[in-house]
Amino acid sequence: MAATADRPLSIDLAPTDRIAVIAGGGDLPRELVRGLTAAGRPPFVIVVGGEDRAGLTDGDHTVLELEEYGRLLPVLRAARATHVVMAGSVSRRPRLRAIRFSLGLLKLLPGIVRGLGRGDDALLRVVVSHIEAAGIKVVGSHQILPDILAGPGALTRTRPAAAHQAGIAAGLAAARAIGALDIGQAAVAVGRRVVAVEGVEGTAGMLARVRDLRASGRISMPGGVLVKCAKPGQELRADLPAIGPDTVAQVHEAGLAGIAVEAGRAIVLRQADVIATADRLGLFVVGIDGPAS
Amino acid sequence: MAATADRPLSIDLAPTDRIAVIAGGGDLPRELVRGLTAAGRPPFVIVVGGEDRAGLTDGDHTVLELEEYGRLLPVLRAARATHVVMAGSVSRRPRLRAIRFSLGLLKLLPGIVRGLGRGDDALLRVVVSHIEAAGIKVVGSHQILPDILAGPGALTRTRPAAAHQAGIAAGLAAARAIGALDIGQAAVAVGRRVVAVEGVEGTAGMLARVRDLRASGRISMPGGVLVKCAKPGQELRADLPAIGPDTVAQVHEAGLAGIAVEAGRAIVLRQADVIATADRLGLFVVGIDGPAS
Repeated sequence: MAATADRPLSIDLAPTDRIAVIAGGGDLPRELVRGLTAAGRPPFVIVVGGEDRAGLTDGDHTVLELEEYGRLLPVLRAARATHVVMAGSVSRRPRLRAIRFSLGLLKLLPGIVRGLGRGDDALLRVVVSHIEAAGIKVVGSHQILPDILAGPGALTRTRPAAAHQAGIAAGLAAARAIGALDIGQAAVAVGRRVVAVEGVEGTAGMLARVRDLRASGRISMPGGVLVKCAKPGQELRADLPAIGPDTVAQVHEAGLAGIAVEAGRAIVLRQADVIATADRLGLFVVGIDGPAS
Repeated sequence: MAATADRPLSIDLAPTDRIAVIAGGGDLPRELVRGLTAAGRPPFVIVVGGEDRAGLTDGDHTVLELEEYGRLLPVLRAARATHVVMAGSVSRRPRLRAIRFSLGLLKLLPGIVRGLGRGDDALLRVVVSHIEAAGIKVVGSHQILPDILAGPGALTRTRPAAAHQAGIAAGLAAARAIGALDIGQAAVAVGRRVVAVEGVEGTAGMLARVRDLRASGRISMPGGVLVKCAKPGQELRADLPAIGPDTVAQVHEAGLAGIAVEAGRAIVLRQADVIATADRLGLFVVGIDGPAS
């Protein structure tokens, strides 16, 4: 079966290859399914239980609860998947007491227990190594969809002003510092001051906090910037920092002036919508140089 | 006038010396006023506008809005203050548009503007240098009240278990990393994983977030620890990390197992209440070695 899309994939696939998408929340899994389907490569979709399924269940799919992690490899094998893409956010961790045990899971358990107590990146590395040990290749969304990564420079009509550079630098330093500790990928700076750093609450949660801190007067200066960058040395095939149109709206509600993401290592979802929304709201979105790592 | 207290002060004062307390929110200013009064050294209290005044306005005092910062030195001079203690938290920053300008303020303005856009420590250094340039000595609360700093080891009946050490180390690394960037002084680790890092919201705000993240299932492991430590190289006369009975209650509501603070560089307010509350709830409070800085 040859790819028939007007928007080809970035990855070379053999005719017998089949991609499985492990789909968490957010827009990225939907974009992947749409892109793969349009390219004549409809994927097998594993929807993570508890996340939004819209647009994910039209073709071959199954739903896997976090607590059924032991079924992942059998499901992938049954679907004859040769490649796996992990995409989208998983907003909770499995309830340990609700895990359904199986022989397969017992073998994976030491790695899972090790991963669960650590940061997202450590946990994702465990999942990646489980899948690859089964002879299935793990690839990143950006290795499949062309043009999904942020490029360098301003995407928007509005560009960051000279006055924003110190805030971008401060936010980048904070995001890198917590990234190096596998805590989060984002920070918000107002003026030169970092006012919020991302933890388990995620970027939307952090932006809601900044909005509330501004409303209560704890942040008094106008403007500010959201900075997102990959964790130094992180597993780039899973969990690249991402923004989408919702992020732009949340940044606006938090009273910020724009967004800076690491060029080449951050995903801009629904890029046309991101730009249109930011242009309408007068915000900048800019790709900045990240650290080599 | 000689000190007549049964609980003497740590600082040597000449008979003509007078201490002014710049009082933000929380218990620390009240403890200072009580301690100084009990020692026969009733202070002059400058209550920061918008903060709780209970227990602060019985003696000589004035209320100063943040926007009246230009009045600070004249007020201190009029009160014949020889020493200043800055104590308690200030939960908001001045509304720039509401600042009342004066000749005094105009002279201070460059430093204020520089400080406002940065972290708390940078801002407090500006205030300290303004006060000291006027010939008034700035001292820390711990230089006045004996026994206010956390000592090493467990304060409580419950001690941290061996399993907590990795979380304490992870939380300390995170708190130090953001401290070095003048962002915050605290972090929460569950297992080995840092789930929240303190920004402008403060420790109570961060603990409320952890409580909510647990309720929503984003944090699934039980237990965890709050870690607070001074920022590397910080101005120790103002804004030492502090915990009090409220912190213990908030830690309990967040489902954590205990608190680790940097011994010798963190304040434990109402220590007897902290210990009684923690013992009642089965939490540990422990003083740990911080980094030399």
